[in-house]
Amino acid sequence: MVNVVIVGLGIIGGSMAKAIAEYTDCHIIGINRSEETLQKAMECGAIHEIGTADSLKKADMLILGVYPEVAVQFIRDNADKIPRHCIVTDTSGIKSQICPALSEIAREYGFTFVGCHPMAGKEKSGFDVSEATLFRHASCILVPCDAPRQAVDKVADFMMQLGFGRIVYATPEEHDRMISFTSQLPHVIACAYVFSPCCKHHKGFSAGSYRDVSRVANINGVLWSELFIENQQALLPEIDTFLENMTAIRTAIAKGDRQELSQLLNRGKLIKEELGE
Amino acid sequence: MVNVVIVGLGIIGGSMAKAIAEYTDCHIIGINRSEETLQKAMECGAIHEIGTADSLKKADMLILGVYPEVAVQFIRDNADKIPRHCIVTDTSGIKSQICPALSEIAREYGFTFVGCHPMAGKEKSGFDVSEATLFRHASCILVPCDAPRQAVDKVADFMMQLGFGRIVYATPEEHDRMISFTSQLPHVIACAYVFSPCCKHHKGFSAGSYRDVSRVANINGVLWSELFIENQQALLPEIDTFLENMTAIRTAIAKGDRQELSQLLNRGKLIKEELGE
Repeated sequence: MVNVVIVGLGIIGGSMAKAIAEYTDCHIIGINRSEETLQKAMECGAIHEIGTADSLKKADMLILGVYPEVAVQFIRDNADKIPRHCIVTDTSGIKSQICPALSEIAREYGFTFVGCHPMAGKEKSGFDVSEATLFRHASCILVPCDAPRQAVDKVADFMMQLGFGRIVYATPEEHDRMISFTSQLPHVIACAYVFSPCCKHHKGFSAGSYRDVSRVANINGVLWSELFIENQQALLPEIDTFLENMTAIRTAIAKGDRQELSQLLNRGKLIKEELGE
Repeated sequence: MVNVVIVGLGIIGGSMAKAIAEYTDCHIIGINRSEETLQKAMECGAIHEIGTADSLKKADMLILGVYPEVAVQFIRDNADKIPRHCIVTDTSGIKSQICPALSEIAREYGFTFVGCHPMAGKEKSGFDVSEATLFRHASCILVPCDAPRQAVDKVADFMMQLGFGRIVYATPEEHDRMISFTSQLPHVIACAYVFSPCCKHHKGFSAGSYRDVSRVANINGVLWSELFIENQQALLPEIDTFLENMTAIRTAIAKGDRQELSQLLNRGKLIKEELGE
């Protein structure tokens, strides 16, 4: 890898840039809508060059750090500039809705696409909160689609250099189903939770449980509404499962049957224990 | 304060003992069902004496670290041994169901009762996970009921010595309503969340959101089923509010209207920002 082009320098793209600058010898070219962010990225050494669409011609690797639909549109618009030896990867939180399109464009133009979802983030967004260590010990999900093994291994090796703790492989559908549970549902829960009229008065009455469940309610509504809606098919059943389980616990509380409720709650303990958590 | 008797050396009672031993000069007498725990507590210096019901006669302060109903029963059974100058306090997570009974016994026998709920804990229970620093910076909710101001101030001063960051005052009803939101609902959510069939396969697909929302699913089913059922009146409406808000978000996702969903989600961001979180 010599030239890495990163499109979109938000928290994820920005952290990718900083990690690549910190842990590799790659030459990093940044493309971003806001000029101010590009200047900041240059100043702190996260990128070595401010790029334009034409910079894609020299890309050995292209990382998409923009919203899912923007990512597809960007590749569609610029596919003719991407060299055939280039590996394109993304960082999007949904896969079924974008990987097939990106794979198809890659096939048509001769370059390679390997889907990627770094399992790291913060409850804040933007370049200012990005950091080189964001991916440390995190899981990196690769969605190879029909990319050749060699290219997938290259992406995996590259990601491990950035500090990821493990690489996990999934199909777009497997990815989306698991993410609907591990990431999207907690965001829905956090929002619904803080909507309670009690929330504004919580201080002094709260501790770790409040803090943890509400943390990600500080949500980027535009991004997450795109992610939720694009992943409807996986997310709605996951929300429904959760609502059913909430309702089952509610019913046991309302019945006032301690033994039944206790048995139900202990299933939670068992599940966590079996996972070693 | 000279002699402090602590009844029940679980995570909360045990941490109280350790904090009192660490930060005050009080003589600590421990009463506990299991002899093994008492021995451990003696060995590590968390208590200075193993007590019996008769030890209550020399108590200047009595702290109840047992389950709510057990606390009431213990005081009912031993009220005649509690000196009139003694201040009795508890650590229970529910108040409406126990404070009136404890206040009434206190009035009858001449000692003083001040309700207390230390807002600290862990997702594990028992003396082994107790620690002197558990209460550091935490909030201590005092429920004075009809105790004289002087006694309430004494408890507040004492608790501040143990490392608490602030004292908050509430009626039993205010306490129970706020706790149903800040503490009980997150525990219900955590359990319902891990019941998803996806949970067992989360590793590699999860990060902070999963970790945070699922943390307290490792629940003590016996204790929490008592807390939930005793606090039905406050908890059920809080669960219902949450379910309604979840359903509203679900509906917006199902409709696929990004603008509507985005506006809804941004309310979460606003609430968190207004709270400075």
